[in-house]
Amino acid sequence: MRREALELYLVTDRALSLGRPLTEIVAAAVRGGVTMVQLREKECNTREFIELGRAIHTLLQPLGIPLIINDRADIAQVLGAEGLHIGQHDMTYPDARRLLGNEAIIGLSVVFDRQARECLSYTDMDYIGASPIYATPTKTDTAEALGLTGLQSIRQIVGESLPIVAIGGIHADNIQPIIRAGADGVAVVSAICSAPSPERAARELAAAVKQAKS
Amino acid sequence: MRREALELYLVTDRALSLGRPLTEIVAAAVRGGVTMVQLREKECNTREFIELGRAIHTLLQPLGIPLIINDRADIAQVLGAEGLHIGQHDMTYPDARRLLGNEAIIGLSVVFDRQARECLSYTDMDYIGASPIYATPTKTDTAEALGLTGLQSIRQIVGESLPIVAIGGIHADNIQPIIRAGADGVAVVSAICSAPSPERAARELAAAVKQAKS
Repeated sequence: MRREALELYLVTDRALSLGRPLTEIVAAAVRGGVTMVQLREKECNTREFIELGRAIHTLLQPLGIPLIINDRADIAQVLGAEGLHIGQHDMTYPDARRLLGNEAIIGLSVVFDRQARECLSYTDMDYIGASPIYATPTKTDTAEALGLTGLQSIRQIVGESLPIVAIGGIHADNIQPIIRAGADGVAVVSAICSAPSPERAARELAAAVKQAKS
Repeated sequence: MRREALELYLVTDRALSLGRPLTEIVAAAVRGGVTMVQLREKECNTREFIELGRAIHTLLQPLGIPLIINDRADIAQVLGAEGLHIGQHDMTYPDARRLLGNEAIIGLSVVFDRQARECLSYTDMDYIGASPIYATPTKTDTAEALGLTGLQSIRQIVGESLPIVAIGGIHADNIQPIIRAGADGVAVVSAICSAPSPERAARELAAAVKQAKS
Protein backbone atom coordinates (compact mmCIF):
# COMPACT_ATOMS: atom_id res chain seq x y z
CA MET A 1 0.00 0.00 0.00
CA ARG A 2 1.27 3.44 -0.87
CA ARG A 3 1.35 5.60 2.28
CA GLU A 4 -0.48 8.35 0.35
CA ALA A 5 -3.53 6.11 0.17
CA LEU A 6 -4.12 6.98 3.81
CA GLU A 7 -4.26 10.74 3.26
CA LEU A 8 -8.03 11.02 3.17
CA TYR A 9 -9.72 7.82 4.25
CA LEU A 10 -13.52 7.70 4.15
CA VAL A 11 -15.21 5.35 6.62
CA THR A 12 -18.84 4.88 5.67
CA ASP A 13 -21.84 5.09 7.95
CA ARG A 14 -25.27 4.79 6.39
CA ALA A 15 -27.00 6.08 9.51
CA LEU A 16 -25.09 9.35 9.16
CA SER A 17 -25.66 9.71 5.41
CA LEU A 18 -28.92 11.69 5.74
CA GLY A 19 -30.87 9.10 3.79
CA ARG A 20 -28.70 9.35 0.68
CA PRO A 21 -27.51 6.09 -0.93
CA LEU A 22 -24.00 5.13 0.12
CA THR A 23 -22.86 4.62 -3.47
CA GLU A 24 -23.79 8.26 -4.12
CA ILE A 25 -21.84 9.45 -1.08
CA VAL A 26 -18.80 7.39 -2.06
CA ALA A 27 -18.88 8.50 -5.70
CA ALA A 28 -19.04 12.14 -4.64
CA ALA A 29 -16.33 11.71 -2.00
CA VAL A 30 -14.04 10.13 -4.57
CA ARG A 31 -14.56 13.01 -6.99
CA GLY A 32 -13.58 15.29 -4.12
CA GLY A 33 -10.30 13.47 -3.47
CA VAL A 34 -10.82 10.57 -1.06
CA THR A 35 -7.87 8.17 -1.31
CA MET A 36 -9.25 5.05 0.42
CA VAL A 37 -12.70 3.82 1.45
CA GLN A 38 -13.69 1.60 4.33
CA LEU A 39 -17.11 -0.01 4.26
CA ARG A 40 -18.34 -0.33 7.81
CA GLU A 41 -21.70 -2.01 8.29
CA LYS A 42 -22.79 -3.22 11.68
CA GLU A 43 -26.52 -3.59 11.21
CA CYS A 44 -27.26 -5.19 7.87
CA ASN A 45 -27.23 -8.86 6.97
CA THR A 46 -24.38 -10.54 5.12
CA ARG A 47 -26.14 -10.66 1.75
CA GLU A 48 -26.93 -6.96 1.85
CA PHE A 49 -23.36 -6.12 3.00
CA ILE A 50 -21.97 -8.07 0.04
CA GLU A 51 -24.30 -6.45 -2.47
CA LEU A 52 -23.49 -2.98 -1.19
CA GLY A 53 -19.79 -3.80 -1.15
CA ARG A 54 -19.93 -5.05 -4.71
CA ALA A 55 -21.57 -1.84 -5.93
CA ILE A 56 -18.94 0.26 -4.19
CA HIS A 57 -16.08 -1.93 -5.36
CA THR A 58 -17.29 -1.62 -8.96
CA LEU A 59 -17.13 2.13 -8.52
CA LEU A 60 -13.68 2.26 -6.87
CA GLN A 61 -11.75 -0.45 -8.68
CA PRO A 62 -11.31 1.38 -12.03
CA LEU A 63 -10.01 4.39 -10.10
CA GLY A 64 -7.42 2.36 -8.20
CA ILE A 65 -8.88 3.41 -4.87
CA PRO A 66 -8.65 0.57 -2.33
CA LEU A 67 -11.83 -0.76 -0.75
CA ILE A 68 -11.31 -1.88 2.84
CA ILE A 69 -13.94 -3.97 4.62
CA ASN A 70 -14.51 -3.46 8.33
CA ASP A 71 -14.32 -6.60 10.50
CA ARG A 72 -15.76 -9.14 8.04
CA ALA A 73 -12.81 -10.96 6.48
CA ASP A 74 -15.21 -13.32 4.72
CA ILE A 75 -16.95 -10.44 2.98
CA ALA A 76 -13.57 -9.01 1.96
CA GLN A 77 -12.77 -12.42 0.45
CA VAL A 78 -16.08 -12.74 -1.38
CA LEU A 79 -15.70 -9.25 -2.87
CA GLY A 80 -12.01 -9.54 -3.63
CA ALA A 81 -11.68 -6.25 -1.75
CA GLU A 82 -8.25 -4.73 -1.33
CA GLY A 83 -8.19 -5.04 2.42
CA LEU A 84 -9.63 -5.37 5.91
CA HIS A 85 -9.79 -3.09 8.89
CA ILE A 86 -9.97 -4.72 12.28
CA GLY A 87 -10.52 -3.37 15.76
CA GLN A 88 -9.46 -4.77 19.10
CA HIS A 89 -12.76 -6.71 19.34
CA ASP A 90 -12.45 -8.32 15.90
CA MET A 91 -10.27 -11.27 14.90
CA THR A 92 -6.58 -10.93 15.71
CA TYR A 93 -4.15 -9.48 13.21
CA PRO A 94 -2.34 -12.81 12.61
CA ASP A 95 -5.67 -14.53 11.89
CA ALA A 96 -6.68 -11.77 9.48
CA ARG A 97 -3.35 -12.00 7.63
CA ARG A 98 -3.59 -15.78 7.44
CA LEU A 99 -7.09 -15.58 5.91
CA LEU A 100 -6.41 -12.77 3.44
CA GLY A 101 -2.85 -13.40 2.36
CA ASN A 102 0.17 -11.20 1.83
CA GLU A 103 -1.30 -8.87 -0.75
CA ALA A 104 -4.21 -7.60 1.36
CA ILE A 105 -4.06 -4.21 3.06
CA ILE A 106 -4.71 -4.84 6.75
CA GLY A 107 -5.05 -2.10 9.34
CA LEU A 108 -5.77 -2.25 13.06
CA SER A 109 -7.38 0.28 15.38
CA VAL A 110 -5.23 1.24 18.33
CA VAL A 111 -6.26 3.21 21.40
CA PHE A 112 -3.67 2.43 24.04
CA ASP A 113 0.10 2.62 23.98
CA ARG A 114 0.40 -1.09 24.74
CA GLN A 115 -1.70 -1.86 21.64
CA ALA A 116 0.65 0.27 19.56
CA ARG A 117 3.62 -1.62 21.00
CA GLU A 118 1.97 -4.93 20.06
CA CYS A 119 1.75 -3.76 16.45
CA LEU A 120 5.52 -3.52 16.29
CA SER A 121 5.74 -7.31 16.30
CA TYR A 122 3.65 -7.49 13.12
CA THR A 123 6.16 -6.48 10.51
CA ASP A 124 3.72 -6.89 7.63
CA MET A 125 0.91 -4.76 9.09
CA ASP A 126 -0.09 -2.00 6.66
CA TYR A 127 -1.28 0.76 8.96
CA ILE A 128 -2.73 1.54 12.33
CA GLY A 129 -5.78 3.65 12.99
CA ALA A 130 -5.27 5.89 16.03
CA SER A 131 -8.75 6.19 17.44
CA PRO A 132 -10.48 8.27 18.63
CA ILE A 133 -8.46 11.46 18.41
CA TYR A 134 -11.41 13.52 19.56
CA ALA A 135 -14.77 12.56 21.05
CA THR A 136 -17.30 11.66 18.38
CA PRO A 137 -20.91 10.60 18.20
CA THR A 138 -20.09 8.03 15.48
CA LYS A 139 -18.81 5.29 17.73
CA THR A 140 -20.17 4.73 21.18
CA ASP A 141 -17.97 1.80 22.14
CA THR A 142 -14.64 3.58 22.07
CA ALA A 143 -12.34 4.61 24.86
CA GLU A 144 -11.51 8.13 25.99
CA ALA A 145 -10.19 10.44 23.29
CA LEU A 146 -6.44 10.29 22.58
CA GLY A 147 -5.97 13.94 21.76
CA LEU A 148 -2.81 15.18 20.09
CA THR A 149 -0.69 13.96 23.00
CA GLY A 150 -2.01 10.41 22.65
CA LEU A 151 -1.38 10.50 18.91
CA GLN A 152 2.18 11.77 19.43
CA SER A 153 2.76 8.98 21.92
CA ILE A 154 1.62 6.33 19.43
CA ARG A 155 3.84 7.83 16.72
CA GLN A 156 6.78 7.77 19.12
CA ILE A 157 6.16 4.09 19.87
CA VAL A 158 5.87 2.89 16.26
CA GLY A 159 8.45 5.31 14.83
CA GLU A 160 8.37 5.48 11.05
CA SER A 161 7.82 1.75 10.65
CA LEU A 162 4.00 1.98 10.55
CA PRO A 163 1.76 4.46 8.78
CA ILE A 164 -0.84 6.03 11.09
CA VAL A 165 -4.26 7.26 10.12
CA ALA A 166 -6.02 9.37 12.71
CA ILE A 167 -9.77 9.03 13.22
CA GLY A 168 -12.42 10.58 15.43
CA GLY A 169 -13.87 14.09 15.41
CA ILE A 170 -11.74 15.28 12.50
CA HIS A 171 -12.78 18.13 10.19
CA ALA A 172 -10.99 20.50 7.85
CA ASP A 173 -10.17 22.98 10.64
CA ASN A 174 -8.31 20.58 12.94
CA ILE A 175 -6.33 18.58 10.39
CA GLN A 176 -3.14 20.62 10.56
CA PRO A 177 -2.20 19.86 14.20
CA ILE A 178 -3.16 16.21 13.70
CA ILE A 179 -0.84 15.77 10.75
CA ARG A 180 1.90 17.65 12.62
CA ALA A 181 1.42 15.35 15.62
CA GLY A 182 2.40 12.42 13.43
CA ALA A 183 -0.55 11.19 11.37
CA ASP A 184 0.06 10.20 7.75
CA GLY A 185 -3.55 10.90 6.99
CA VAL A 186 -7.00 11.30 8.43
CA ALA A 187 -10.08 9.11 8.40
CA VAL A 188 -13.49 10.71 8.56
CA VAL A 189 -17.06 9.55 8.82
CA SER A 190 -19.56 12.34 9.42
CA ALA A 191 -17.34 15.10 7.97
CA ILE A 192 -18.12 13.54 4.57
CA CYS A 193 -21.18 11.30 5.07
CA SER A 194 -23.22 14.03 6.74
CA ALA A 195 -21.94 16.96 4.67
CA PRO A 196 -24.47 18.85 2.49
CA SER A 197 -22.03 18.22 -0.38
CA PRO A 198 -19.81 15.18 0.26
CA GLU A 199 -17.78 16.11 -2.81
CA ARG A 200 -17.02 19.64 -1.61
CA ALA A 201 -16.37 18.37 1.92
CA ALA A 202 -13.87 15.80 0.60
CA ARG A 203 -12.18 18.46 -1.52
CA GLU A 204 -11.73 20.75 1.47
CA LEU A 205 -10.43 17.92 3.64
CA ALA A 206 -8.02 16.73 0.96
CA ALA A 207 -6.72 20.27 0.50
CA ALA A 208 -6.26 20.64 4.27
CA VAL A 209 -4.22 17.42 4.40
CA LYS A 210 -2.06 18.50 1.44
CA GLN A 211 -1.48 21.89 3.03
CA ALA A 212 -0.60 20.41 6.42
CA LYS A 213 1.93 18.12 4.74
CA SER A 214 3.54 20.83 2.62
CA MET B 1 -20.50 -35.77 6.12
CA ARG B 2 -22.24 -38.90 7.34
CA ARG B 3 -26.02 -38.46 7.03
CA GLU B 4 -26.36 -39.69 10.64
CA ALA B 5 -24.59 -36.56 11.82
CA LEU B 6 -27.85 -34.71 11.14
CA GLU B 7 -29.96 -36.88 13.43
CA LEU B 8 -29.92 -34.54 16.40
CA TYR B 9 -28.48 -31.16 15.53
CA LEU B 10 -28.17 -28.58 18.30
CA VAL B 11 -28.33 -24.92 17.27
CA THR B 12 -27.15 -22.73 20.12
CA ASP B 13 -28.84 -19.64 21.46
CA ARG B 14 -27.33 -17.99 24.50
CA ALA B 15 -30.42 -15.87 25.10
CA LEU B 16 -32.45 -19.06 25.55
CA SER B 17 -29.91 -20.82 27.77
CA LEU B 18 -31.33 -19.49 31.05
CA GLY B 19 -28.06 -17.82 32.00
CA ARG B 20 -26.05 -21.04 31.86
CA PRO B 21 -22.71 -20.96 29.98
CA LEU B 22 -23.00 -22.27 26.45
CA THR B 23 -20.06 -24.64 26.88
CA GLU B 24 -21.98 -26.26 29.74
CA ILE B 25 -25.12 -26.63 27.60
CA VAL B 26 -23.14 -28.09 24.71
CA ALA B 27 -21.20 -30.50 26.92
CA ALA B 28 -24.44 -31.77 28.48
CA ALA B 29 -26.20 -32.00 25.11
CA VAL B 30 -23.34 -34.04 23.70
CA ARG B 31 -23.47 -36.45 26.63
CA GLY B 32 -27.16 -36.82 25.85
CA GLY B 33 -26.55 -37.74 22.22
CA VAL B 34 -26.36 -34.61 20.06
CA THR B 35 -24.70 -35.47 16.73
CA MET B 36 -23.82 -32.01 15.38
CA VAL B 37 -23.60 -28.49 16.85
CA GLN B 38 -24.20 -25.16 15.19
CA LEU B 39 -22.89 -22.06 16.90
CA ARG B 40 -25.25 -19.21 16.11
CA GLU B 41 -24.30 -15.82 17.51
CA LYS B 42 -25.95 -12.70 16.21
CA GLU B 43 -25.18 -10.23 18.98
CA CYS B 44 -21.61 -10.63 20.14
CA ASN B 45 -18.48 -9.18 18.60
CA THR B 46 -16.10 -11.19 16.41
CA ARG B 47 -13.45 -11.69 19.09
CA GLU B 48 -16.00 -13.04 21.56
CA PHE B 49 -17.56 -15.29 18.88
CA ILE B 50 -14.13 -16.74 18.10
CA GLU B 51 -13.27 -17.34 21.75
CA LEU B 52 -16.58 -19.04 22.42
CA GLY B 53 -16.24 -21.06 19.23
CA ARG B 54 -12.74 -22.17 20.22
CA ALA B 55 -13.95 -23.38 23.62
CA ILE B 56 -16.77 -25.36 22.02
CA HIS B 57 -14.55 -26.73 19.27
CA THR B 58 -12.05 -27.96 21.87
CA LEU B 59 -14.91 -29.81 23.51
CA LEU B 60 -16.36 -31.34 20.33
CA GLN B 61 -13.28 -32.15 18.28
CA PRO B 62 -12.06 -35.14 20.33
CA LEU B 63 -15.57 -36.60 20.12
CA GLY B 64 -15.72 -36.31 16.33
CA ILE B 65 -18.83 -34.12 16.53
CA PRO B 66 -18.80 -31.48 13.79
CA LEU B 67 -18.92 -27.81 14.77
CA ILE B 68 -20.85 -25.73 12.26
CA ILE B 69 -20.65 -21.92 12.35
CA ASN B 70 -23.71 -19.88 11.45
CA ASP B 71 -23.19 -17.23 8.73
CA ARG B 72 -19.60 -16.20 9.53
CA ALA B 73 -17.35 -18.03 7.07
CA ASP B 74 -14.35 -16.09 8.38
CA ILE B 75 -14.92 -17.35 11.90
CA ALA B 76 -15.30 -20.90 10.59
CA GLN B 77 -11.91 -20.47 8.89
CA VAL B 78 -10.20 -19.00 11.94
CA LEU B 79 -11.47 -21.85 14.12
CA GLY B 80 -10.88 -24.57 11.57
CA ALA B 81 -14.49 -25.55 12.22
CA GLU B 82 -15.98 -28.44 10.31
CA GLY B 83 -18.56 -26.37 8.51
CA LEU B 84 -20.83 -23.42 7.89
CA HIS B 85 -24.56 -22.96 7.91
CA ILE B 86 -25.97 -20.21 5.73
CA GLY B 87 -29.41 -18.74 5.35
CA GLN B 88 -30.99 -16.99 2.41
CA HIS B 89 -29.70 -13.63 3.73
CA ASP B 90 -26.11 -14.78 4.12
CA MET B 91 -23.47 -15.22 1.42
CA THR B 92 -24.47 -17.45 -1.48
CA TYR B 93 -23.71 -21.15 -1.44
CA PRO B 94 -21.10 -20.93 -4.24
CA ASP B 95 -19.26 -18.15 -2.38
CA ALA B 96 -19.29 -20.18 0.84
CA ARG B 97 -17.94 -23.26 -0.95
CA ARG B 98 -15.23 -21.21 -2.66
CA LEU B 99 -14.08 -19.76 0.68
CA LEU B 100 -14.17 -22.96 2.71
CA GLY B 101 -13.09 -25.59 0.22
CA ASN B 102 -14.33 -29.06 -0.63
CA GLU B 103 -13.93 -30.63 2.78
CA ALA B 104 -16.22 -28.26 4.67
CA ILE B 105 -19.76 -29.26 5.60
CA ILE B 106 -22.03 -26.58 4.17
CA GLY B 107 -25.77 -26.43 4.73
CA LEU B 108 -28.39 -23.95 3.60
CA SER B 109 -31.74 -22.99 5.09
CA VAL B 110 -34.65 -23.41 2.75
CA VAL B 111 -38.20 -22.17 3.20
CA PHE B 112 -39.75 -22.13 -0.24
CA ASP B 113 -39.99 -24.80 -2.90
CA ARG B 114 -38.06 -22.65 -5.38
CA GLN B 115 -35.17 -22.43 -2.90
CA ALA B 116 -35.17 -26.23 -2.63
CA ARG B 117 -35.09 -26.48 -6.44
CA GLU B 118 -32.09 -24.09 -6.53
CA CYS B 119 -30.21 -26.44 -4.21
CA LEU B 120 -30.42 -29.20 -6.81
CA SER B 121 -27.90 -27.33 -8.94
CA TYR B 122 -25.34 -27.49 -6.13
CA THR B 123 -24.20 -31.08 -6.33
CA ASP B 124 -21.68 -30.70 -3.51
CA MET B 125 -24.06 -29.19 -0.95
CA ASP B 126 -24.08 -31.22 2.27
CA TYR B 127 -27.57 -30.68 3.60
CA ILE B 128 -30.53 -28.36 3.63
CA GLY B 129 -32.31 -27.09 6.69
CA ALA B 130 -36.08 -27.02 6.18
CA SER B 131 -37.17 -24.11 8.31
CA PRO B 132 -39.39 -23.44 10.15
CA ILE B 133 -41.45 -26.59 10.40
CA TYR B 134 -43.57 -25.10 13.16
CA ALA B 135 -43.87 -21.54 14.48
CA THR B 136 -41.18 -20.77 17.03
CA PRO B 137 -40.19 -17.87 19.24
CA THR B 138 -36.48 -18.46 18.44
CA LYS B 139 -36.33 -16.72 15.10
CA THR B 140 -38.47 -13.72 14.31
CA ASP B 141 -37.28 -13.17 10.75
CA THR B 142 -38.59 -16.38 9.29
CA ALA B 143 -41.45 -17.04 6.93
CA GLU B 144 -44.69 -18.86 7.66
CA ALA B 145 -44.31 -22.37 9.06
CA LEU B 146 -43.83 -25.17 6.52
CA GLY B 147 -45.71 -27.81 8.42
CA LEU B 148 -45.43 -31.46 7.46
CA THR B 149 -46.85 -30.73 4.01
CA GLY B 150 -44.15 -28.16 3.28
CA LEU B 151 -41.47 -30.57 4.47
CA GLN B 152 -42.87 -33.36 2.29
CA SER B 153 -42.87 -31.00 -0.66
CA ILE B 154 -39.19 -30.13 -0.13
CA ARG B 155 -38.32 -33.83 0.17
CA GLN B 156 -40.16 -34.52 -3.07
CA ILE B 157 -38.20 -31.78 -4.84
CA VAL B 158 -34.74 -32.82 -3.71
CA GLY B 159 -35.41 -36.57 -3.74
CA GLU B 160 -32.73 -38.57 -1.98
CA SER B 161 -29.90 -36.43 -3.34
CA LEU B 162 -29.82 -34.05 -0.36
CA PRO B 163 -30.09 -34.75 3.36
CA ILE B 164 -32.71 -32.64 5.09
CA VAL B 165 -32.67 -31.48 8.68
CA ALA B 166 -35.95 -30.07 9.98
CA ILE B 167 -35.93 -27.10 12.34
CA GLY B 168 -38.51 -25.01 14.16
CA GLY B 169 -40.77 -25.88 17.04
CA ILE B 170 -39.52 -29.44 17.35
CA HIS B 171 -39.68 -31.44 20.58
CA ALA B 172 -39.64 -35.12 21.51
CA ASP B 173 -43.38 -35.50 20.98
CA ASN B 174 -43.57 -34.31 17.39
CA ILE B 175 -40.42 -35.92 15.99
CA GLN B 176 -42.04 -39.04 14.60
CA PRO B 177 -44.26 -37.39 11.95
CA ILE B 178 -41.39 -35.08 10.99
CA ILE B 179 -39.02 -37.95 10.31
CA ARG B 180 -41.78 -39.81 8.47
CA ALA B 181 -42.43 -36.71 6.34
CA GLY B 182 -38.89 -36.96 5.03
CA ALA B 183 -36.43 -35.40 7.45
CA ASP B 184 -33.10 -37.17 8.03
CA GLY B 185 -32.85 -35.51 11.39
CA VAL B 186 -34.04 -32.64 13.53
CA ALA B 187 -32.41 -29.44 14.68
CA VAL B 188 -33.45 -27.91 17.96
CA VAL B 189 -32.71 -24.75 19.87
CA SER B 190 -34.91 -24.23 22.90
CA ALA B 191 -35.79 -27.93 23.34
CA ILE B 192 -32.21 -28.35 24.56
CA CYS B 193 -30.93 -24.85 25.44
CA SER B 194 -33.90 -24.03 27.65
CA ALA B 195 -34.39 -27.50 29.13
CA PRO B 196 -33.96 -27.94 32.88
CA SER B 197 -31.53 -30.75 32.01
CA PRO B 198 -30.06 -30.30 28.52
CA GLU B 199 -28.50 -33.76 28.83
CA ARG B 200 -31.80 -35.50 29.57
CA ALA B 201 -33.56 -33.44 26.91
CA ALA B 202 -30.98 -34.45 24.31
CA ARG B 203 -31.26 -38.09 25.36
CA GLU B 204 -35.04 -38.05 24.92
CA LEU B 205 -34.81 -36.29 21.56
CA ALA B 206 -32.13 -38.69 20.31
CA ALA B 207 -34.23 -41.67 21.39
CA ALA B 208 -37.28 -40.22 19.63
CA VAL B 209 -35.29 -39.83 16.40
CA LYS B 210 -33.93 -43.39 16.63
CA GLN B 211 -37.41 -44.73 17.27
CA ALA B 212 -38.95 -42.79 14.39
CA LYS B 213 -36.28 -44.16 12.07
CA SER B 214 -36.61 -47.75 13.20
